[in-house]
Amino acid sequence: MGELELIEYIRGLAAEGAPAWLEVGIGDDAAVLRVGAGERVLATTDMVVEGTHFESGTPPEAVGRKAVARALSDLAAMAARPLCVVAAVQFRAETDPGFCRRLGRALWEASRELSAPLVGGDVVGGAGPLSLTVTAIGLPGPAGVVRRTGARPGDLVCVTGALGGAMRGRHLSFTPCVAEALWLAERFDLHAMIDVSDGLSTDLLHLARASGLGLTVRADCIPVHPDVVALGGEGAEGDERVRHALNDGEDYELVFCLSEPEAKEAARSGVLGTAVSIIGTARRGSRSFVVWPDGRREQLRGEGWQHLVA
Amino acid sequence: MGELELIEYIRGLAAEGAPAWLEVGIGDDAAVLRVGAGERVLATTDMVVEGTHFESGTPPEAVGRKAVARALSDLAAMAARPLCVVAAVQFRAETDPGFCRRLGRALWEASRELSAPLVGGDVVGGAGPLSLTVTAIGLPGPAGVVRRTGARPGDLVCVTGALGGAMRGRHLSFTPCVAEALWLAERFDLHAMIDVSDGLSTDLLHLARASGLGLTVRADCIPVHPDVVALGGEGAEGDERVRHALNDGEDYELVFCLSEPEAKEAARSGVLGTAVSIIGTARRGSRSFVVWPDGRREQLRGEGWQHLVA
Repeated sequence: MGELELIEYIRGLAAEGAPAWLEVGIGDDAAVLRVGAGERVLATTDMVVEGTHFESGTPPEAVGRKAVARALSDLAAMAARPLCVVAAVQFRAETDPGFCRRLGRALWEASRELSAPLVGGDVVGGAGPLSLTVTAIGLPGPAGVVRRTGARPGDLVCVTGALGGAMRGRHLSFTPCVAEALWLAERFDLHAMIDVSDGLSTDLLHLARASGLGLTVRADCIPVHPDVVALGGEGAEGDERVRHALNDGEDYELVFCLSEPEAKEAARSGVLGTAVSIIGTARRGSRSFVVWPDGRREQLRGEGWQHLVA
Repeated sequence: MGELELIEYIRGLAAEGAPAWLEVGIGDDAAVLRVGAGERVLATTDMVVEGTHFESGTPPEAVGRKAVARALSDLAAMAARPLCVVAAVQFRAETDPGFCRRLGRALWEASRELSAPLVGGDVVGGAGPLSLTVTAIGLPGPAGVVRRTGARPGDLVCVTGALGGAMRGRHLSFTPCVAEALWLAERFDLHAMIDVSDGLSTDLLHLARASGLGLTVRADCIPVHPDVVALGGEGAEGDERVRHALNDGEDYELVFCLSEPEAKEAARSGVLGTAVSIIGTARRGSRSFVVWPDGRREQLRGEGWQHLVA
């Protein structure tokens, strides 16, 4: 049973009767809650586990920062402003106190650097690998929240930055695209948005499914990160480079859908110094495709990261 | 390094410059955030780990419910109303899909039973023991939030229900005292409140430290749960029974401070069918004590549950 299957299962249960204050529930990057007279609050939770999201021996500073940054990337995907985070940490019982203190400081410093101060937490000693769960609380940006659900046939699919090879180190050092998302949301009518965490292929499918349409992406338009070439080996050549960009994941870039004129404007302007690439189109239909330079049209499959549950 | 030490360390870092919107930060049962024009939102996060908070082989229904109920108990301690929860689950990679589905359903059903629907989550497969992190979001009750910090010299210390022996099963089946806390907060001027999770001794010390005073509790006034007698053995006799009530933890009852007349009224009325016991007094000073029936005055030490980090 994969992560997605379990989330789909719970989502099915939750869909039965959503309360009136729940504007967005399970199935987007963050939940959107109405509180009081017209205020809205976003919440999203994200776990990183030693051996799955970072290697043993990774400095605690990098681990703490990644845990915070990942949760905030989910707020960026909704074009929200981070307010704060709470964090739960599970240490191996035998962990050196100096390591614990460094991790605690890292969580605090990352939360401050990324404008979402740590306001609460829990610490547990256990038998298992180091794990951190960060829950981020946010507020809608000035232009409101952007969901995965609003892509329209005829939209162009855009992506910020370049993708692939994040395992070379970017997965620990990225800055979530909060400012970029807010900038885009103020200037454009973003129909749908998601962050690239599981991998472009998987995240495109999330967006397509949520919007109830199909996407066609052009392999030669997908911006490949120099880290892919740096990986070396067979994967650093030709189509394999694009497959890295499609499937490696942990890029934490933004994928979004705009009308054709707006997409072209975004591609011209970029966003805060980062390139915006048009990689495909949205159309009616339930299947999504990658078109390769030789004309081959291949069904898009979610070959990005899946945390295997069984 | 104990859990409390690490939390104190991070709290020290966080105290440097709290943002204006942060009404209550690290160091109480939940953070209180001001959002928009006068709204306030509470957030608290709590992790349960197999082998630490529940035994291997515990049915997933009980595990899921405990994870939700624990987080909501922290909202109860602030006299807040739960709004919703988000949950992150770490399974062992080899976990049976049927177990995963039962746990997912349990989280959803417990969240609905306890009036805090699950609105988001994360699922990770890893090498370690099963763990669940639940973050609860709440809103202040009609009478506002109650902190740990407001106890006054001369206050009487009260506790709901009876304590000790929760490991016999109550730690899995308790209902957080949300209704009780709201009821008390509407009728009384609660100076300070905390829930009994780590153990009465440890939680009394949390409250005393936060309020900057000392507490004196009378051993013979501490309500001992019948589960302690049912434990049998030497612990089921005399003073040892009271030590169970002081130190076992996971009772999820409420400890609160009221003026003397209000405490006496609360003890007379009980709360929604649950007894309220007056167990001690607050006074100036930094040390807290237990007075035993033979007149011995023993310094109160936090011998309750500590998740050992090292």
